[in-house]
Amino acid sequence: MKIAVLAGDGIGPEVTREALKVLDALSLPGLVLFEGDVGGIAYKRHGHPLPAETLEMARAADAVLFGAVGDPECDTLPREHRPEQAILGLRSELRLFANLRPAAGFPGLEDLSPLKPELARGIDLLVVRELNGDVYFGKKGERDSAGGREGWDDMSYNEAEVRRIAHTGFRAAQKRRKKLTSVDKANVLETSRIWREAVIKVAAEYPDVELDHMYVDNAAMQMVRSPGQFDVVLTGNLFGDILSDQASACVGSIGLLASASLGERQTGFGTFGLYEPIHGSAPDITGQGKANPIAAILSLAMLLRHSLGREEEANRIERAAAKTLASEIRGADLGGSASTGEIGDAVVRNLL
Amino acid sequence: MKIAVLAGDGIGPEVTREALKVLDALSLPGLVLFEGDVGGIAYKRHGHPLPAETLEMARAADAVLFGAVGDPECDTLPREHRPEQAILGLRSELRLFANLRPAAGFPGLEDLSPLKPELARGIDLLVVRELNGDVYFGKKGERDSAGGREGWDDMSYNEAEVRRIAHTGFRAAQKRRKKLTSVDKANVLETSRIWREAVIKVAAEYPDVELDHMYVDNAAMQMVRSPGQFDVVLTGNLFGDILSDQASACVGSIGLLASASLGERQTGFGTFGLYEPIHGSAPDITGQGKANPIAAILSLAMLLRHSLGREEEANRIERAAAKTLASEIRGADLGGSASTGEIGDAVVRNLL
Ligand SMILES: CC(C)[C@H](C(=O)O)[C@@H](O)C(=O)O
Ligand SMILES: CC(C)[C@H](C(=O)O)[C@@H](O)C(=O)O
Repeated sequence: MKIAVLAGDGIGPEVTREALKVLDALSLPGLVLFEGDVGGIAYKRHGHPLPAETLEMARAADAVLFGAVGDPECDTLPREHRPEQAILGLRSELRLFANLRPAAGFPGLEDLSPLKPELARGIDLLVVRELNGDVYFGKKGERDSAGGREGWDDMSYNEAEVRRIAHTGFRAAQKRRKKLTSVDKANVLETSRIWREAVIKVAAEYPDVELDHMYVDNAAMQMVRSPGQFDVVLTGNLFGDILSDQASACVGSIGLLASASLGERQTGFGTFGLYEPIHGSAPDITGQGKANPIAAILSLAMLLRHSLGREEEANRIERAAAKTLASEIRGADLGGSASTGEIGDAVVRNLL
Repeated sequence: MKIAVLAGDGIGPEVTREALKVLDALSLPGLVLFEGDVGGIAYKRHGHPLPAETLEMARAADAVLFGAVGDPECDTLPREHRPEQAILGLRSELRLFANLRPAAGFPGLEDLSPLKPELARGIDLLVVRELNGDVYFGKKGERDSAGGREGWDDMSYNEAEVRRIAHTGFRAAQKRRKKLTSVDKANVLETSRIWREAVIKVAAEYPDVELDHMYVDNAAMQMVRSPGQFDVVLTGNLFGDILSDQASACVGSIGLLASASLGERQTGFGTFGLYEPIHGSAPDITGQGKANPIAAILSLAMLLRHSLGREEEANRIERAAAKTLASEIRGADLGGSASTGEIGDAVVRNLL
């Protein structure tokens, strides 16, 4: 079982270190780790945010444990050299088409949410975001127009792309509360019309899952008004970018949430995927021991579950993380004073 | 001064009637009203949701007072005949390029917000949404692809389009707290790259306004976490659709918020525009006297301010609406039992 560890920039290395501590404590047999550079640090060392050797290492692995990318020193670089191009490159090169973003409150931490407690308590949803298509990876450029320089981007989805992610969404719903909300803008976009038609066709194969459709503006409204109504939210790359961040903000603990980006390839143990905390590189607190490693540790749990078929260990980690969060060991983000390392140690202690 | 009144479907006529009651009470000299069909009702009567005579009536007016469109009986019609095409048609035909959506809580009604009271109290923002460009009005269609049928939409902005809406945004900011947040997705979209460059150029003409840029995913997050940070939010058609609805949901009183869609043409008294409540046609409560007319009445206030140069009357209406909201006269949406007509009457009484 090969894991490529791409810790990246900012607090990425600090939080990834704690995830690896937890992995180590599990003493899984036959595990090999590789480490590679990615993001701003990779640009500085190799002239590219996603060097060929890093990409090959990721490709050869069964799973990628990803930290964070983003470095203020790279902000003035041309777009193709900026750190976030690394994550876009990994998604497309490794065909990571399915982004899973669970958003649920942690018992005892409902107060972190900006929403009223009775609304916050009800949040338990999974955003399933398509990650290889849409306006992200279509043709784009600049052209002349009567109104001067014009920037343009081609937005599209075809039936095969929608079917593939829809199956991921419906299968996830079957393991949850069996409700799927497909979000689009079918009253305006042709891309969404095809999206909706294809989702409806796939739904016929999942009669046990209840399907409804919501326009993205209404979804953004409902996510604030009554987020508890959502189970699985299935959507495209652009709307998923917006709604998954909004959902995380509703939970309130952005520093605690993990994500998976799955490909099509089967690893022998599960599905190839990349796992990362949803928080960024947080340059403002880098190197101060203030970063909360829970999201990185929960990303590791998702990795074990989806890519390595280790459901039991995944559950153990998740229970240990929840136990730690409910204890007096709290990081600065939760009003406590525990350091990154102390939180990681506590999760290890709570593993049993 | 000519006003075209397009009351539309569902509760549109009921709430528009109350706005007209308020207008009548003002006894403005030289006012002429025209009424036209729009939306589902127009489709049923004339075979099109935006009949040519309605469009001409709107074009010939100084302002359009719009109710709502949307009718469940039209849901199965092909897209070009559906009620919402009327509003898209009016926006493009009348070149209504600037959508102003104020979102602020009403004193005493903070509890309507799904956010915690300390966050809700701080919301006082204006979304300035471009309404004539972006992926809404670009070329679009269906094409064959290796993955089957593919829906596509061309997203674009040119410098002139961005400059035009940016001026609207900066001028609005000058009259408010002098802060403008431009929202885009410049790390992914060429459309956004041009957007950002053009906004930065226009900003040079408004040195008194503080400008910052935010990616749309972060904006959706911040709108929930700390909405009080926003003054003017300047954004494109698609992101504006999502963020303005999200902002309204954060305020909590969707039934109370108004909007303006301004064109370029000067009327002699102000700027030509269309004014509408942001709530929809609400077929579930139509004809029961349960609709709250405050949003329609506040839309009238915006009409008087922007299109007819009647700032004083606009302020009077806004004060009367606020006074009514703070009184015991409350509609069903606010836990009271006052009817649509009773609320309208109360606003009239509070006008002085
Ligand atoms: C960094 C950026 C390109 C990326 C995206 O838009 O997908 C990020 O916001 C995310 O959601 O992972
Ligand atoms: C009805 C729909 C086409 C419209 C839009 O997307 O602009 C609506 O959501 C709005 O915001 O006015």
